[in-house]
Amino acid sequence: MRKGCTLWFTGLSGSGKSTLAQALEKKLRNREVNVEVLDGDVIRTNLSKGLGFSKEDRDINIRRIGFVCNLLTRNGVVAIAAAISPYKAIRGENRALVGKRFVEIYCECPLEELERRDPKGLYKKARAGEIKGFTGIDDPYEPPEHPEITINSMTETKEESLARILRTLELMGFIPPGPEATEIPPDEEETIKKKLGELGYL
Amino acid sequence: MRKGCTLWFTGLSGSGKSTLAQALEKKLRNREVNVEVLDGDVIRTNLSKGLGFSKEDRDINIRRIGFVCNLLTRNGVVAIAAAISPYKAIRGENRALVGKRFVEIYCECPLEELERRDPKGLYKKARAGEIKGFTGIDDPYEPPEHPEITINSMTETKEESLARILRTLELMGFIPPGPEATEIPPDEEETIKKKLGELGYL
Repeated sequence: MRKGCTLWFTGLSGSGKSTLAQALEKKLRNREVNVEVLDGDVIRTNLSKGLGFSKEDRDINIRRIGFVCNLLTRNGVVAIAAAISPYKAIRGENRALVGKRFVEIYCECPLEELERRDPKGLYKKARAGEIKGFTGIDDPYEPPEHPEITINSMTETKEESLARILRTLELMGFIPPGPEATEIPPDEEETIKKKLGELGYL
Repeated sequence: MRKGCTLWFTGLSGSGKSTLAQALEKKLRNREVNVEVLDGDVIRTNLSKGLGFSKEDRDINIRRIGFVCNLLTRNGVVAIAAAISPYKAIRGENRALVGKRFVEIYCECPLEELERRDPKGLYKKARAGEIKGFTGIDDPYEPPEHPEITINSMTETKEESLARILRTLELMGFIPPGPEATEIPPDEEETIKKKLGELGYL
């Protein structure tokens, strides 16, 4: 049986974590991969009801997601976490727990762009002080220093991001190839291979 | 791949839940079954820190264990829960969540016997009022009405209980046969088959 992994999406609200996680889930199910998406909302309902958004409560929430991701990963499941997870130290704890099968996917996007889009009006409310402790506004976000994958919803389409994630996971050996080859530009394939070489995967 | 299941141990403190869960885990690993034990203490540390022993907090804790068992079960893992889980309604919720692959194992043992053994002195403290809300003393325990398996640590040895659980799971088709046949008395084999017939498994 193919071994599992944890795909840990991190990034500001609106940066594309849940959207990509869901699209990825669909692609992986088509490849008959066992996959579970643990997104922030599902977890807050089922594992973390009662927790708020203080640093302490956020940390507990992120540790719980890590605990479940690890249980799934060591049983051959691709566990996809999609939560802001703003603090580097706790993401690092989860990486240490899961080990070499932890793949950090940083959803990079400038705050200005996210505030411009703001489909749910959350940034506006946070700027107006109606929401307190909103990551990126009055609560910190610590970007990853060495994410395995970085995607950027301002400079690339969802399909491009998805293809790069899939191709990277194929090259890492964490997922089987799809029915059709994953199409990414040749120069990007080279960039991925170089990066995976640096990270010790290839 | 063989599909998973949830083995839900329920019973009073000291009735043998954790001991049997651990012994079962070992046996199943020997059969190359993917298995995870979610025992009350592990869960209270990793998923339920901060929760107490009020009815509400107990219910949340048991629902969380059920949520994780379901994630594991639908990905082919044998998830073993070992928690007092005193309330019938919440065990029923978890059964509904997991579906046909939920196996309730009732660890029956008279309270008098548990108080006589009391290796950790917990019952004594509960009787003295030093521990409040202790299941069986000043907090209710609602035994299951139709558990798939009942074990009794007063009338049978650990090995006998274990053999009956393994044989039942084999007959249910949830685990593969072991390297050697699971030995149980012929009349007990008949009793198990009759019970599984009534429950709709055979």
